[in-house]
Amino acid sequence: MDRMDCFFNPKSVAVIGASRFPKEVGHVIFRNFMEGGFRGKSFPVNPKADRILDCRCYPSVLKIREKIELGVITVPARIVPLVLEECGKKGIPAVIIISAGFKEIGNEKLEKRIEKILKKHRIRCIGPNCLGVFDPYAQVDTFFLPRYKLERPGKGDIAFISQSGALGSVVMDWMAMKGYKISKFISYGNAVDLDEADLIEYLAGDKRTRVICAYFEGVKRGRRFFEIAKRVSGKKPVIVLKGGVTDEGTKATLSHTGSLAGSAEVHSAAFRQAGIIEARDLEQIFDFARALSTQPRPKGNRVQVITDGGGFGVLTADSLVKNNLTLAKMSKDNINTLKKGLPSYVVLKNPIDLTGDADAERYRIAIDAALDDPNVDMIALITLFQVPLLTSEIVEVVSAANRRREKPIVVIAAGGRYTEVLKKSIEDSGVPTFSYPERAVEALGALHGYRKKKSEL
Amino acid sequence: MDRMDCFFNPKSVAVIGASRFPKEVGHVIFRNFMEGGFRGKSFPVNPKADRILDCRCYPSVLKIREKIELGVITVPARIVPLVLEECGKKGIPAVIIISAGFKEIGNEKLEKRIEKILKKHRIRCIGPNCLGVFDPYAQVDTFFLPRYKLERPGKGDIAFISQSGALGSVVMDWMAMKGYKISKFISYGNAVDLDEADLIEYLAGDKRTRVICAYFEGVKRGRRFFEIAKRVSGKKPVIVLKGGVTDEGTKATLSHTGSLAGSAEVHSAAFRQAGIIEARDLEQIFDFARALSTQPRPKGNRVQVITDGGGFGVLTADSLVKNNLTLAKMSKDNINTLKKGLPSYVVLKNPIDLTGDADAERYRIAIDAALDDPNVDMIALITLFQVPLLTSEIVEVVSAANRRREKPIVVIAAGGRYTEVLKKSIEDSGVPTFSYPERAVEALGALHGYRKKKSEL
Repeated sequence: MDRMDCFFNPKSVAVIGASRFPKEVGHVIFRNFMEGGFRGKSFPVNPKADRILDCRCYPSVLKIREKIELGVITVPARIVPLVLEECGKKGIPAVIIISAGFKEIGNEKLEKRIEKILKKHRIRCIGPNCLGVFDPYAQVDTFFLPRYKLERPGKGDIAFISQSGALGSVVMDWMAMKGYKISKFISYGNAVDLDEADLIEYLAGDKRTRVICAYFEGVKRGRRFFEIAKRVSGKKPVIVLKGGVTDEGTKATLSHTGSLAGSAEVHSAAFRQAGIIEARDLEQIFDFARALSTQPRPKGNRVQVITDGGGFGVLTADSLVKNNLTLAKMSKDNINTLKKGLPSYVVLKNPIDLTGDADAERYRIAIDAALDDPNVDMIALITLFQVPLLTSEIVEVVSAANRRREKPIVVIAAGGRYTEVLKKSIEDSGVPTFSYPERAVEALGALHGYRKKKSEL
Repeated sequence: MDRMDCFFNPKSVAVIGASRFPKEVGHVIFRNFMEGGFRGKSFPVNPKADRILDCRCYPSVLKIREKIELGVITVPARIVPLVLEECGKKGIPAVIIISAGFKEIGNEKLEKRIEKILKKHRIRCIGPNCLGVFDPYAQVDTFFLPRYKLERPGKGDIAFISQSGALGSVVMDWMAMKGYKISKFISYGNAVDLDEADLIEYLAGDKRTRVICAYFEGVKRGRRFFEIAKRVSGKKPVIVLKGGVTDEGTKATLSHTGSLAGSAEVHSAAFRQAGIIEARDLEQIFDFARALSTQPRPKGNRVQVITDGGGFGVLTADSLVKNNLTLAKMSKDNINTLKKGLPSYVVLKNPIDLTGDADAERYRIAIDAALDDPNVDMIALITLFQVPLLTSEIVEVVSAANRRREKPIVVIAAGGRYTEVLKKSIEDSGVPTFSYPERAVEALGALHGYRKKKSEL
């Protein structure tokens, strides 16, 4: 077994620093393993307790008889070297150090010390100063925040790695609410051993991950990172949001993860060369990831817009042009077929405006024509659910079109609770949904851009 | 009484084309007046019915004895001239023509005919081809879409006018869900009489409206519009999203509202000259409107960022620089006060990072210092609720700071359901909230930009 797999699917875990007190980090993490659905064995380690959550507690990992595949360390920083040595003696191949109090507060010396111990014992390590790992498949969950404050997303195929713990936890909580799903979530903090490059490389080979997303403020070994990223980008999309792209942002990173972030232009150019897709903001990471993980690659940049509201059609057309995509021109044959099937007042240009009395059947006819037409590469579908005749039948129409897997489809729908319910059904069926035209069109742009880039790499 | 007031607070309304059949437009609108809380009198008009919703139905407005202040017309397009003549004879000062089938489908002649009748009788008109008016104070509601599909927002001070009906209805539904509140909502369609300029001029004098928002694809009489907009912008912020800013978008507008949208650059330049704040997308209209309607005008562009998560602080700093705002430098005295009140590991730069064990009291100390400091003009407050000690007490801390009304405050918080509940409480207390740094910072940019522009106008 690859030592890296021990982080995400260990047979046995020791929580070193497990605690009896419900508010403490070591308690929450041990509880996650006991009650969250983890199928391996979990052992609490704490010399000051006999039992935790009705389990026998061990004074040291050395007192555990069974083999331990993963150690999760939550003890105070100054004790970390001691417990790490014990992990080494025990032969634990992988540890996550949650504890903070190292380089990020100027304690470089202590960080160097643990680096040495890790090397000596050939232990692979995530952290310190991090939230660690969430794997929804194996239910490895080292996030020490209570679930009512931080919900966990379901099983999917988008991986996210974050240098910043707080940012990672925000994103996870937000994804869970939105119903977006993940394969693996890693907050890696100070990266004393494993850094962004190692994690991206590992995720490239992970069968459950289709798209790799990352937030970081700086890369540790720039050249190595870009070489790995380039190789991985040829296999799977890599989407990055980089913090600290301005001088002011850079200064702020110094007191955050202690890494030095470089200038925006230099990084953007390097990202492009390596085939990395750069996101403008946190939300856009997942706009891109949802499109890239669910939709086929487009053959070109010609988009057919289908709408039931003129204004949204206009805004989508505006957005397409701004993003270097073009409005598709359907063939005459297809237009004639549409003429027969649709009322005379339906506007058969691009956007096709099915107008305010559109129903699901009218959408079906228009979508089929766009899928069949050789002049159409992608479809932007606007379904405003406020109109009287558009009901939940549209969900099946959209997912049937999506099951053909011929052309990328994105759905744009905004509104209140009724809209949100139907949008979630469409999202669950594997079609990315957006509230407003701009983000949807930018996601189509990313699909087109990645396809072009991949063929170059 | 100004004839314009008849649209928003009439003593009596005739729904011409009221229907007994629940799915018909004329039924839904009459029901809105009967059951939605409207305090004036409502009369159904339909020659084919005796009673509608247990009310006596009239064959023509001429048969109603009482005075009618507002006519809402839902009859087929070809019958509109006939009922308009009757409205004229009855002396009705204001009508909303919901009916479609005029210029937008090439029926210019019919539209000219109704224009003539309106002029002859000096009737003021909203429409045709529109959704009409929603006024939450008087509960005038001519939206013909059922409330489960299209929720209505509560009473507030943001006015929104939209050329596009569908787009207007989406926005209203979305605002209701978000808890954003409005003063008046007008969908004006083909604008045979009242156009965007008239409506903006009226709203400038409306005491309940603090910020005027608009979506349109073209302006009817450009010069007049910009003169009025300039005058109004000196009094109240006017925020516009223009559809059809690219050639492709422009072509799409032709088959939508039949108006010709001009080029992006020309319009943007004219907007700037007139002091209009241009929004990049629909959501941004309300990002700006919420900030401008609730927050005081800043004295300058120096922003203090206060956070409990480093990553979000970094992204906010990046965003500030991109938006031509600067990171404030607090005075030494203030920094010293903060040093005394806060733990030693709190980062006292800009961003101030209160770190992951921040509680509401720590925020109170930092916010007070920023409000007191002469080197700080605005405050960007990041409150990530995933951390263990940050509870609902923060709501009172933020609203107490806001009640001082000294400096603009915006709040950034993202996450799941727990976060959304607390964010909504903060929003309700009059502080605009945002999920991610970029939109919050752009709203601060709009506050600063409007203050500068207003002093020039």
